[in-house]
Amino acid sequence: MNEFELLARLLPGLPGNDTVLTGAGDDCAVLDFGLPDRLLLFKTDALVAGIHFTPDTPPEKIGRKALARALSDIAAMAGTPTAALVTLALPADYDPDHIARIYDGLNGLARETGTAIAGGETTTNPERLLLSIALLGTVPRGKQILRSGAKPGDALFVTGELGGSLAGKHLDFTPRLAEARWLAEHFPIHAMMDLSDGLAGDLPHILRASHCGAELHKTALPVSRAAKQRAAHKPPVIAALTDGEDFELLFTVPPRTSVKLLDAWKEQFPDVKLTCIGKITATPGLLLRDRHGAHPLTLTGYVHHAEPPAAG
Amino acid sequence: MNEFELLARLLPGLPGNDTVLTGAGDDCAVLDFGLPDRLLLFKTDALVAGIHFTPDTPPEKIGRKALARALSDIAAMAGTPTAALVTLALPADYDPDHIARIYDGLNGLARETGTAIAGGETTTNPERLLLSIALLGTVPRGKQILRSGAKPGDALFVTGELGGSLAGKHLDFTPRLAEARWLAEHFPIHAMMDLSDGLAGDLPHILRASHCGAELHKTALPVSRAAKQRAAHKPPVIAALTDGEDFELLFTVPPRTSVKLLDAWKEQFPDVKLTCIGKITATPGLLLRDRHGAHPLTLTGYVHHAEPPAAG
Repeated sequence: MNEFELLARLLPGLPGNDTVLTGAGDDCAVLDFGLPDRLLLFKTDALVAGIHFTPDTPPEKIGRKALARALSDIAAMAGTPTAALVTLALPADYDPDHIARIYDGLNGLARETGTAIAGGETTTNPERLLLSIALLGTVPRGKQILRSGAKPGDALFVTGELGGSLAGKHLDFTPRLAEARWLAEHFPIHAMMDLSDGLAGDLPHILRASHCGAELHKTALPVSRAAKQRAAHKPPVIAALTDGEDFELLFTVPPRTSVKLLDAWKEQFPDVKLTCIGKITATPGLLLRDRHGAHPLTLTGYVHHAEPPAAG
Repeated sequence: MNEFELLARLLPGLPGNDTVLTGAGDDCAVLDFGLPDRLLLFKTDALVAGIHFTPDTPPEKIGRKALARALSDIAAMAGTPTAALVTLALPADYDPDHIARIYDGLNGLARETGTAIAGGETTTNPERLLLSIALLGTVPRGKQILRSGAKPGDALFVTGELGGSLAGKHLDFTPRLAEARWLAEHFPIHAMMDLSDGLAGDLPHILRASHCGAELHKTALPVSRAAKQRAAHKPPVIAALTDGEDFELLFTVPPRTSVKLLDAWKEQFPDVKLTCIGKITATPGLLLRDRHGAHPLTLTGYVHHAEPPAAG
């Protein structure tokens, strides 16, 4: 039983209440606390030594990444981050300076994005450092973008480039907060999520939630330079489909919107690529179209594997 | 450098923003999201296998305890819980049935207290299970009880009985949510917190935050039966002062309120003990008064020590 199967077993039994508009299964929980104009977004995300970073990862980048991952989920709902709590599970031999430098990186990104660090907790995790972020944000009421709104015929877009994130981007990426808010304000975005487990692993979440399928155009995929440079180890298209930690936005819009969206985007975000990579279909399943036709795509997303514990 | 020293180093540099009314250093963060009548409470708390529970702890009680600890912090602010996220860091050899039973216990307490489980996250922590709860609640605006409001002359009260929690109570306690809300509604509570690290370890947090001292009456301490039964291992008064995980409320009120409070409490909560254990003083420091006079109390609170990893 993998994590997804475990969750499928656990999720149906979770208690709800009137505040929960969207619970488990989307990028963030969406909560209605009675604010007339806004809804709350609520998300947790954890980094574990030896899995999400290594002993030689600069500690500032560990802290930055921990917060950036959670911010990317707020972006995926077209939200704005507000305040975070940091849970620090410390190994027996932790180095206080290492922890202080982790906070330097985390605090820096918090300031850049207007996110308060409102406290947290420390506990002990003897063998390795674990850093968990609980993050609150808001979204204008009715403007939250879920995974479940994709419609057959929608054009499928992705920001930035895909694959090869482990070469460096996973520690340096900028969560697409501004881009997502702009999209939600100006275009009828039907469904959106952030890519953390690879396009081939993540897109099916939108397809299941929206009860539809998709067809990807192989030649359209925006393969990153890092993925191309590693072609000797993995075909770049496979890397773009399956490497994790892209932290780009994946979203769908009505097809008639595509050209206008691309034009407006180029003006608004000239330094960030936006690519139409395919379309949503009524038939369930995920197809990859190349010059020989459309074939079922069965690759699964990137799954983090444990390496030996990292220091401090 | 212990956890407290590390936090003292980290906390001054944390970024804030307009939403944060009370940040790190109290039982919960208090956030102003613009609701006219209420403020938000935000808290995280983690349980780690081998530290907060053992291989033979019934899994339902692990889940219950994980949520109960966070709920106790909401109670300490006189708040009402709303929604939680569960971060599950799973060891390599986890047993799905064990995890499902943990959720049974957690969901049960969530239902009892009206708390939604709005999702969460799973990740990997190869050597041991770690379970972190992020919890949101609300409190009527202006009715939140902080640690910083104690005044010289205040009477110091504690609910329930102290010490010996590890004999069983730490897995079964009921967070004092109803009691705390009733207190805040009916009496001018100056300062409040929940006891997690032992009275002698936790009371100094109120004293530091309120810039005052306290005098405890040794004979007044409500020593639990479990602490008395373990007298051969530890003097019961020492257990009541230093054992962790009591999860009782510690609070201060103006002295003129004491009699009326005790009478009303007895009527409202006949099954829960309430004891005046001393008073707040202008002179900093913590004194223990016995028949020989008042002596400085320098015992520190219970600190969790790591034991070998627990199964699943």
